Amino acid sequence: MTVVRPENVHQARLLRQLRDGGPRSRAEIGDSVALSRSKLAMEIDRLVGHGLIQADGLAQSRGGRRSSIVRISPQIRFIGIDIGATSVAVAITDGELRVLARAEETMDIRQGPDAVLGRAFELVGKLRSENSVPTLLGAGVGVPGPVSFSRGVPVSPPIMPGWNQFPVRETFSAELGCPVLVDNDVNIMALGEKHAGIAKSADDFLFVKVGTGVGCGVVIGGDLYRGVSGCAGDIGHICVDENGPICACGHVGCLEALFSGAALSRDALAAARSGRSEFLASRLEQAGTLTAVDVADAAEAGDATAHAMVREGGHRLGLMLASLVSFFNPGLVVIGGGLAGFGHSLLAEIRSTAYRTSLPLATGNLPIVLSELGDQAGVIGAARIISDHVFTAG
Amino acid sequence: MTVVRPENVHQARLLRQLRDGGPRSRAEIGDSVALSRSKLAMEIDRLVGHGLIQADGLAQSRGGRRSSIVRISPQIRFIGIDIGATSVAVAITDGELRVLARAEETMDIRQGPDAVLGRAFELVGKLRSENSVPTLLGAGVGVPGPVSFSRGVPVSPPIMPGWNQFPVRETFSAELGCPVLVDNDVNIMALGEKHAGIAKSADDFLFVKVGTGVGCGVVIGGDLYRGVSGCAGDIGHICVDENGPICACGHVGCLEALFSGAALSRDALAAARSGRSEFLASRLEQAGTLTAVDVADAAEAGDATAHAMVREGGHRLGLMLASLVSFFNPGLVVIGGGLAGFGHSLLAEIRSTAYRTSLPLATGNLPIVLSELGDQAGVIGAARIISDHVFTAG
Repeated sequence: MTVVRPENVHQARLLRQLRDGGPRSRAEIGDSVALSRSKLAMEIDRLVGHGLIQADGLAQSRGGRRSSIVRISPQIRFIGIDIGATSVAVAITDGELRVLARAEETMDIRQGPDAVLGRAFELVGKLRSENSVPTLLGAGVGVPGPVSFSRGVPVSPPIMPGWNQFPVRETFSAELGCPVLVDNDVNIMALGEKHAGIAKSADDFLFVKVGTGVGCGVVIGGDLYRGVSGCAGDIGHICVDENGPICACGHVGCLEALFSGAALSRDALAAARSGRSEFLASRLEQAGTLTAVDVADAAEAGDATAHAMVREGGHRLGLMLASLVSFFNPGLVVIGGGLAGFGHSLLAEIRSTAYRTSLPLATGNLPIVLSELGDQAGVIGAARIISDHVFTAG
Repeated sequence: MTVVRPENVHQARLLRQLRDGGPRSRAEIGDSVALSRSKLAMEIDRLVGHGLIQADGLAQSRGGRRSSIVRISPQIRFIGIDIGATSVAVAITDGELRVLARAEETMDIRQGPDAVLGRAFELVGKLRSENSVPTLLGAGVGVPGPVSFSRGVPVSPPIMPGWNQFPVRETFSAELGCPVLVDNDVNIMALGEKHAGIAKSADDFLFVKVGTGVGCGVVIGGDLYRGVSGCAGDIGHICVDENGPICACGHVGCLEALFSGAALSRDALAAARSGRSEFLASRLEQAGTLTAVDVADAAEAGDATAHAMVREGGHRLGLMLASLVSFFNPGLVVIGGGLAGFGHSLLAEIRSTAYRTSLPLATGNLPIVLSELGDQAGVIGAARIISDHVFTAG
């Protein structure tokens, strides 16, 4: 399959504009690009010729002749794949990255790349057979660990045994027959919130994911900041208590060892077994295991121990955020991931700690908010990252 | 005085290249700019005509006709002014930002803007009367507190009573008759290390200043990152101990309240008075006061209490750096400011803590080093920031 790419930066900019802003008139486009009317008409005609955009009726008159509307071709599709620690989600989007179809399954990342990617391919195949995919331009993939973005492989991922250096990008690309990019799941989610969520108008912001692990997507000037080794935002393993518990990474007192899905399920088991929480003890008896969801349910039901766990976790995370905010001075902080499901009781604790321990200049106008997209952030962000790549002058 | 500015981006790029790389042949310049030979010759001629660059002999032959060398005009001068908490330093540089003359005085920032700026003007006047300043293109000023870079005024600076919203840029500009920019002293020092120090080849790095206060300059892609309110890098007021001492800012347990010049002098007094350090007690008796320098002397002389203070401080700073490194994944960390004078005993503690508590991916190739420029970093960086501004297409 030959994938058509924009031929120059003007075409690339036009495609991104139509992807992000939706259909618009040639006159509107002319207002925002530095091209003569004839040059713009030529670039639009070439994009139409390549099947990347198409005419879509006439706009209302702005005084003179009515300008024709163009939009990104309704034939275009992207695939977004969000591989988490405990689930795989796959979506097909249109050229504006709206999710047209989505499938998700629980799946343990520790089953290794063959099993997990095999299942992801099946999900993609199912979606493709149920939905028309006229022009597949590319696929983005998020995985729950550090990734060499340029090579498309996980690098020493702590919770992904068997995945180190596995050629995730190549494997997907061979299977799907289209360009593929692989990134860390938190980066992908940050881009999703930037494209279609609460961070849409933010240029410098942090997306903090609190799920099985904890991580942070750093967006600067509208683009992901990856750091020199590609591991920027790896906040889950910042030491927050030198006398804290040992973390899965081998260090002591990491944030993730104190507050994360994994830490909460460990603490919930301890609370159930020690008799400090009747709710959790009875839940453990029924289910044989406990997760963060049980802690949320217990807190919801008024269980004091579970409440304290949420408050203590929010406090830890709030202190950490206060540090990051003082250092980075972002315009917005978005909290996402599974534990964002704790909702406003967690958010209230995070906010009060972060606002109390930061200087007013950094937090005066700083919103700390919950993700708007929830579990859609990953697949939309994955589609976004590959569309950024495809909509670059080839 | 009419200041000549480059007329277009090509001229601006040429000037910056000659500023940063020194004299070079037209052929070398041609290799690195995307201009036709005739267009390049025209831009160079125009810069020569404006007195911004000049011919400087012939280069060695690369096979054909010998190419002529051009350099930034030796007439050009910049002024760099570094206002610290306890000193004012002023320098005159040439167009390549080499310091030609420098003057420094101790001065308390708390005397307020009239007294401090008056003294700075006198220092500038003294340097100008002793040194020829054929073409003054601009002056950069660093001050020890948060600055609105666009307005050139300090904003609620904690250790600068009387300076809030004072028109520092306008006052200097009126006095010196040239373009002036004002920035936070740490940002200025980071730029100085980037221009002429150990960070010369680093694009993403942190410059951590430990002086009377503690702050951090954040450089991304070779440029300062200021954050959305201009206060990025304000790490001195990150809470590192919720049960720690109260800071001058009113919060509890800020890094600066635990490790800084001010904190060390407080702790030194306590150690002298409680009899825990004979060295510091006798120094206090002689001098009537104690500073961080006395702690350094005491540690040097083998005083165990002073040693412990340096180790504990280095540990605190190292833990903080480990957090920043995990989050930001920089290519280099430079430690500067007065307390960098503690040298390798401090550095060893910072390094061992930071390397021990970070993940290998972030620190594997991360040098943590002492500033090369010492107290020159500020004035060179101040000259750099205004030259960046002046060498921008007007």
